[in-house]
Amino acid sequence: MNDLKQRILEENKKDLAEIETQLSENLKPYLDLVSEVAHHILFAGGKRLRPLLLVLSARICGYTDKYAKIVSSALEYLHAATLLHDDIIDDAVLRRGQTVAHSVYGNAVTVLVGDFLLARALAICADSGKIKVIHIISELTENMSTGEVHQLMRKGDITLTEDEYLEVIRRKTAVLFQAACTVSAVIAEASAEKEQALSDYGYNLGLAFQMVDDLFDYTMDSAALGKEVGADLREGKLTLPIIQALKEADPADRDQMIKIIQNEDFTVDEFKTLVALLQRNNGIDYTVKTATAYLEKAKKALSVFEPSKPRDSLFDIADYALARRL
Amino acid sequence: MNDLKQRILEENKKDLAEIETQLSENLKPYLDLVSEVAHHILFAGGKRLRPLLLVLSARICGYTDKYAKIVSSALEYLHAATLLHDDIIDDAVLRRGQTVAHSVYGNAVTVLVGDFLLARALAICADSGKIKVIHIISELTENMSTGEVHQLMRKGDITLTEDEYLEVIRRKTAVLFQAACTVSAVIAEASAEKEQALSDYGYNLGLAFQMVDDLFDYTMDSAALGKEVGADLREGKLTLPIIQALKEADPADRDQMIKIIQNEDFTVDEFKTLVALLQRNNGIDYTVKTATAYLEKAKKALSVFEPSKPRDSLFDIADYALARRL
Repeated sequence: MNDLKQRILEENKKDLAEIETQLSENLKPYLDLVSEVAHHILFAGGKRLRPLLLVLSARICGYTDKYAKIVSSALEYLHAATLLHDDIIDDAVLRRGQTVAHSVYGNAVTVLVGDFLLARALAICADSGKIKVIHIISELTENMSTGEVHQLMRKGDITLTEDEYLEVIRRKTAVLFQAACTVSAVIAEASAEKEQALSDYGYNLGLAFQMVDDLFDYTMDSAALGKEVGADLREGKLTLPIIQALKEADPADRDQMIKIIQNEDFTVDEFKTLVALLQRNNGIDYTVKTATAYLEKAKKALSVFEPSKPRDSLFDIADYALARRL
Repeated sequence: MNDLKQRILEENKKDLAEIETQLSENLKPYLDLVSEVAHHILFAGGKRLRPLLLVLSARICGYTDKYAKIVSSALEYLHAATLLHDDIIDDAVLRRGQTVAHSVYGNAVTVLVGDFLLARALAICADSGKIKVIHIISELTENMSTGEVHQLMRKGDITLTEDEYLEVIRRKTAVLFQAACTVSAVIAEASAEKEQALSDYGYNLGLAFQMVDDLFDYTMDSAALGKEVGADLREGKLTLPIIQALKEADPADRDQMIKIIQNEDFTVDEFKTLVALLQRNNGIDYTVKTATAYLEKAKKALSVFEPSKPRDSLFDIADYALARRL
């Protein structure tokens, strides 16, 4: 697994270094405090997956100008803005093993720096001079906020279906991956066919990525997660492993699961019992299988492109989405 | 005073009605809850000053298409987004005499609906097809968030100068008024001279408007304010009446003022004492005088335009900024 990550990092070393530089340079805060809070979230071990997707999508379309890297900052700022706001919303304690921004700087400043990053992202996109880029990014931001509201509205509701779960993760995650890939095709002025291919790749990758992320809450320990185990469940976020297991379980297992799900103060032992119930009732396997299918779709979309180094890396990223830390 | 308001409303009745319609129509939320929270803030007796400025600025440039009214929604959404976030930040209780959104819907949903409104505003501007409009709006959003952070950083600091106060209100308020007027000139493809004139009008009006707003916290009662008396002071927001009075007061008055300012739990009587001290030490008069000077500047900027009904209304709005409820 680790080989895959190493290869992605190695193959894209130069681009990743430039992405990092751009992330600092394009921030242009007028206040030190804004810079500090933005750095807290931006430079805390993020994978730069979204910027890298954007740069690789540009490369696969034959575009090599610096501009793609500048716009890649916009995507990461947007992502960081939602993380700042989400951590407040979820009342999170840790993110990537580090104290969340709002615990250090307070909710007020954190909300505002999120707004700043959002605005900064849009200003950078406006610099592209392409209205279509702005359309993609503003629509994406609408989707992300409504996706989060949708999730909040269905908090703890055990009647949540797979379709509704898909709608939520489509809005809150997949559209950002999709935008990262599509924006590049627009900047590169690629053919409609290539733009669609990259859009499909990003969208399916994004869905799978979120599914696997949601799965980690039940398969990884706290140290590997960089946050508390069972955090999703404690926030009432019901994800695919639970949805599927509830569907397949017999009445006894189902009752036991519901009891734990609906108890906000579940113990570590109860959580372990729940994980065993998810395993027994196909929750884990089904999620892996479903994510794998989306990743296959993502990879298949890239078949319109000739073999190339950026295409190899996009394949690697799709594989990594599932393999990263199972 | 009320005559002025009546005249503005009467002269622009049709435009205001259409602004109202557009505000509903352009929201396009996909969730009822998003719509509900957005309506809570959008349709709670807002003056529609920013949309009206935009429409009047378009008219004065000879532009009469419906499009100005659509973009005017964007300005009001942006304004509403900042109100939602600001009320959370300030931990406000009332806004326009009504319970604030976050007390009704919770912080999480309120933060997200703010994000949604922000994104919606930018999507509408992208529809204009004019990159310059996007630039103005995204830069404005950056300014507004950093202006708020700046204000937070200087919370309760009695060494705040008039210059720094001006910098804060420039970013958090004046740029929005300025944008409302400038965006119209861009949409109308008006001359650079007219664009500059409208920019100057909006900017100076915005500064004066905020100064007068800040003044009201010391000159109006709770019912007229629609929020608690002394709310600014309790939040540690030091505004021009205080800054100037502290500057002019003798040591005894100064000490007495500082004591009240720095006591978070000041009583109603102490607040009344403070208001008397502000009056005695030129805080109130100086603020009125300064705001008046900015309003004169605003009106003077409009001299590049021929006399017309929209110009009359823009003059009336400048007068109203000071006269509204002193």
